[in-house]
Amino acid sequence: MTPDRLFLYDTTLRDGQQTQGVQFSTPEKVRIAEALDALGLDYIEGGWPGANPTDSAFFETAPNTRATMTAFGMTKRAGRSAENDEVLAGVLNAGTGAVCLVGKSHVFHVETALGISLAENLDNLSKSFAHLAAQGREALYDAEHFFDGYRADPGYALDCLRAALDAGARWVVLCDTNGGTLPDEIRRVTEAVIAAGIPGDRLGIHTHNDTETAVAGSLAAVEAGARQIQGTLNGLGERCGNANLTTLIPTLLLKEPYASRYETGVTPEALEGLTRISRMLDDILNRVPHRQAPYVGASAFAHKAGLHASAILKDPTTYEHVDPATVGNARIVPMSNQAGQSNLRRRLAEAGLDVASGDPALPRILDEIKAREDQGYSYDTAQASFELLARRILGRMQRFFEVKRYKVTVERRKNKYDRMVSLSEAVVVVKIGDQKMLSVSESMDETGSDRGPVNALAKALAKDLGPYQSYIDDIRLVDFKVRITQGGTEAVTRVIIDSEDGQGRRWSTVGVSANIVDASFEALLDAVMWKLVRDGAVGS
Amino acid sequence: MTPDRLFLYDTTLRDGQQTQGVQFSTPEKVRIAEALDALGLDYIEGGWPGANPTDSAFFETAPNTRATMTAFGMTKRAGRSAENDEVLAGVLNAGTGAVCLVGKSHVFHVETALGISLAENLDNLSKSFAHLAAQGREALYDAEHFFDGYRADPGYALDCLRAALDAGARWVVLCDTNGGTLPDEIRRVTEAVIAAGIPGDRLGIHTHNDTETAVAGSLAAVEAGARQIQGTLNGLGERCGNANLTTLIPTLLLKEPYASRYETGVTPEALEGLTRISRMLDDILNRVPHRQAPYVGASAFAHKAGLHASAILKDPTTYEHVDPATVGNARIVPMSNQAGQSNLRRRLAEAGLDVASGDPALPRILDEIKAREDQGYSYDTAQASFELLARRILGRMQRFFEVKRYKVTVERRKNKYDRMVSLSEAVVVVKIGDQKMLSVSESMDETGSDRGPVNALAKALAKDLGPYQSYIDDIRLVDFKVRITQGGTEAVTRVIIDSEDGQGRRWSTVGVSANIVDASFEALLDAVMWKLVRDGAVGS
Repeated sequence: MTPDRLFLYDTTLRDGQQTQGVQFSTPEKVRIAEALDALGLDYIEGGWPGANPTDSAFFETAPNTRATMTAFGMTKRAGRSAENDEVLAGVLNAGTGAVCLVGKSHVFHVETALGISLAENLDNLSKSFAHLAAQGREALYDAEHFFDGYRADPGYALDCLRAALDAGARWVVLCDTNGGTLPDEIRRVTEAVIAAGIPGDRLGIHTHNDTETAVAGSLAAVEAGARQIQGTLNGLGERCGNANLTTLIPTLLLKEPYASRYETGVTPEALEGLTRISRMLDDILNRVPHRQAPYVGASAFAHKAGLHASAILKDPTTYEHVDPATVGNARIVPMSNQAGQSNLRRRLAEAGLDVASGDPALPRILDEIKAREDQGYSYDTAQASFELLARRILGRMQRFFEVKRYKVTVERRKNKYDRMVSLSEAVVVVKIGDQKMLSVSESMDETGSDRGPVNALAKALAKDLGPYQSYIDDIRLVDFKVRITQGGTEAVTRVIIDSEDGQGRRWSTVGVSANIVDASFEALLDAVMWKLVRDGAVGS
Repeated sequence: MTPDRLFLYDTTLRDGQQTQGVQFSTPEKVRIAEALDALGLDYIEGGWPGANPTDSAFFETAPNTRATMTAFGMTKRAGRSAENDEVLAGVLNAGTGAVCLVGKSHVFHVETALGISLAENLDNLSKSFAHLAAQGREALYDAEHFFDGYRADPGYALDCLRAALDAGARWVVLCDTNGGTLPDEIRRVTEAVIAAGIPGDRLGIHTHNDTETAVAGSLAAVEAGARQIQGTLNGLGERCGNANLTTLIPTLLLKEPYASRYETGVTPEALEGLTRISRMLDDILNRVPHRQAPYVGASAFAHKAGLHASAILKDPTTYEHVDPATVGNARIVPMSNQAGQSNLRRRLAEAGLDVASGDPALPRILDEIKAREDQGYSYDTAQASFELLARRILGRMQRFFEVKRYKVTVERRKNKYDRMVSLSEAVVVVKIGDQKMLSVSESMDETGSDRGPVNALAKALAKDLGPYQSYIDDIRLVDFKVRITQGGTEAVTRVIIDSEDGQGRRWSTVGVSANIVDASFEALLDAVMWKLVRDGAVGS
């Protein structure tokens, strides 16, 4: 039997942006689109051009993707032609290969929310999709509230789908907009839609996770015959999120009956990048990755129960439904670090540190990383701090200078014009060889604005490092992320600093402390040390 | 039609404790058991007595519950009698009304993992359950790896169930131990088990969330005829967690076809406590609550999209599948660039601020929010800061106190034992009426650990607020998030603080500055002001 082709449609950049607290910048959207394309998605919905400046800017700078770039919008309004609807024109102006328009399919929403007649809504659908087709665009219809609409008036809901298809839409997508439809009903309605003559290979499913069944609902629709799935990475989306593609993709590729029944654009090789893409998105959003996320979570293959752990050593299939390597994740089993050592050697080699297999330093490094990660450090992200830690344990770290002490003062008070102003001052005392250097800096920048205590500390640290000064003059702090995280039994602050130098190199360092200034200083110090190592400064 | 009784079995205290990083103390177990009992669970699995000191101690001090307290263990080992199995004796010694024993049902696990014959395993099951029945205990059999076992050898898997039932077990529970079975297969196998003569009202389901379908799998088993569901609060559990009772309970009570087909021990009144119980568990674990959790998450009823927000004003059912009050949660219509005036009025009304449509303050508030969001503020997340901002513009904000100045010092140096230590000190000067109050605090906590400058500032600010002191004593900082973001043309620091009070209320505030201490202080100050407003403190 030839497997059926399933099409994967990502809406992380549009519906995902409806998540509370999520706002992507244009460069972030570009990075995510490139990752989605590398993963093998069929459609990337980039946003609603014209609705906000970021989305419009994204389509102007959108990368060339193998995936079909898709602009989102809504069907034309009543009382004007499709050609004269400026909202629709804004969507078309983005010049994407595909356009997805949301439109009503529920009598209540047509009459109450829009306040137009049922016939007018059908006309809006026909005219909008005919307009898209006339422009040569691949057209998709997101049928809003479809399942509620079908429950209220199945005939009218089907008429809406037919209006779009007859006018030239490639796909009609059944949307469970408020997330309340359970998988069993999604299956029955999808079957009924197909039985009513809508072909399954022109039918998509779009679910939300308000009952924690968005993934199961998508699978139920596929089993009923739908051939497009819409979802988001990490299940981002309004309220409880959309169907999680980070779960659906491995399920479709690795699990039966799906693996042999269907094929997608995602290759097994690309699937191995899934965990990394999931973490990248969390990094962009400055979110702590969800440890228990299926397939990609740090705990997804962690075996804590003693009974399980010993069985896993005999045969991993006893407590694992798939091999963690297939999604780029790793098994965590207490007392077993065989896999850990080969991973570690590979990471060390990437940092230019060749270490022989069986070197006794390897388990020492692993143990130290584990102990520090328990304290809140995160060496996945802070690769420069990882390299420095490994160098110290391997005895391959030179001694450049030592920080003896520092002191920072932050003061906020009224100035002589009776305005509240802040000023920070930092003193750092460093010893280089036998020489002690005291440096002081304040937080005021060239424009007279206060840049805060971490800035004052960074300036004081970098003010006079004697023979090393020339190496560090071009370091620039480009990002600074702070999280409260768990360190042992206490909450601690983790600071991650991204630095850049004059050659455009970027590196990340980490510091952890209950004290945010301490944590920042630790990350700053690592940033300086890494630059000295990389540029071949000579220490003692 | 009389609804069928469904039985809810909670294993938060046993399987939930297999979550990476989770370890309950005995008093914590007691608190959770009391909350589960108040919610109306039928069974509370308290742990494995004899397996670890905490679990044994829990059963000694377990509260008197209406729910049946249940001890967990495993079936007797081969080569000894049930009476002489000291592990089983340890379980029985807990003296609980019910005992749940895990046992094999999969030929591969019997022969490979246990290394005994298929007949010996059946004998272990019979003898173990006969022993429990003879002692007058209600007995449950957790049939480990049942679905994989049924796939491998359905006859043997069924024989295991029959052995337990025939020996006197009240329930046999189909466990999808490695979480790999999808809902459709769970439904088919459960139907087959019932067709083979195992009564549905003696059948339970126990799923794991490795494919994000644990809830859907449990519902599928119920539809097939099973009458007991095992799960955990907040979906705690090994790897990706167990079936989430925090989602399943409201779905069973509020959603069709379940609400009219089944009844449980949970009343509508108890259901209103669900959000609070979920947050309490996160508090005990010192975890940041999952904002997007179905029903109980802070974002579960948050409407960000402009189109949705305006429809919600006309009729909440347009974008809400259940009323948030039924689970003790609340609707949030966040402010953001996408919001309009109707959205704003709704949000103001929820904060107790009725503003007439067309009030000229509405565009002023929107403009101010937009200007501040351009500076880096994020009112979408920080609802409490939004409310304070609106109150100021509306002239409905009382004057409580004024911060005249503050000063913080962070020092890191060697102590007398030659170890690097840090200490922060903060002075805050506040004016209340005509009275000036100077407060000083340091960052050391009760254990002698440094908690950093923001902690010192928070303590100094909250140390003496005169007539307002009693209102703020129960404020606790639960999360602290920092981002570098764009403020106009410059990078600034945005701090979001989540606070909680003794009644379990949570609120978020925001501060923005190039100076991280300033930004934190601004968010802290808003947190205090909001509490004073909400609790009706009288200012001037």
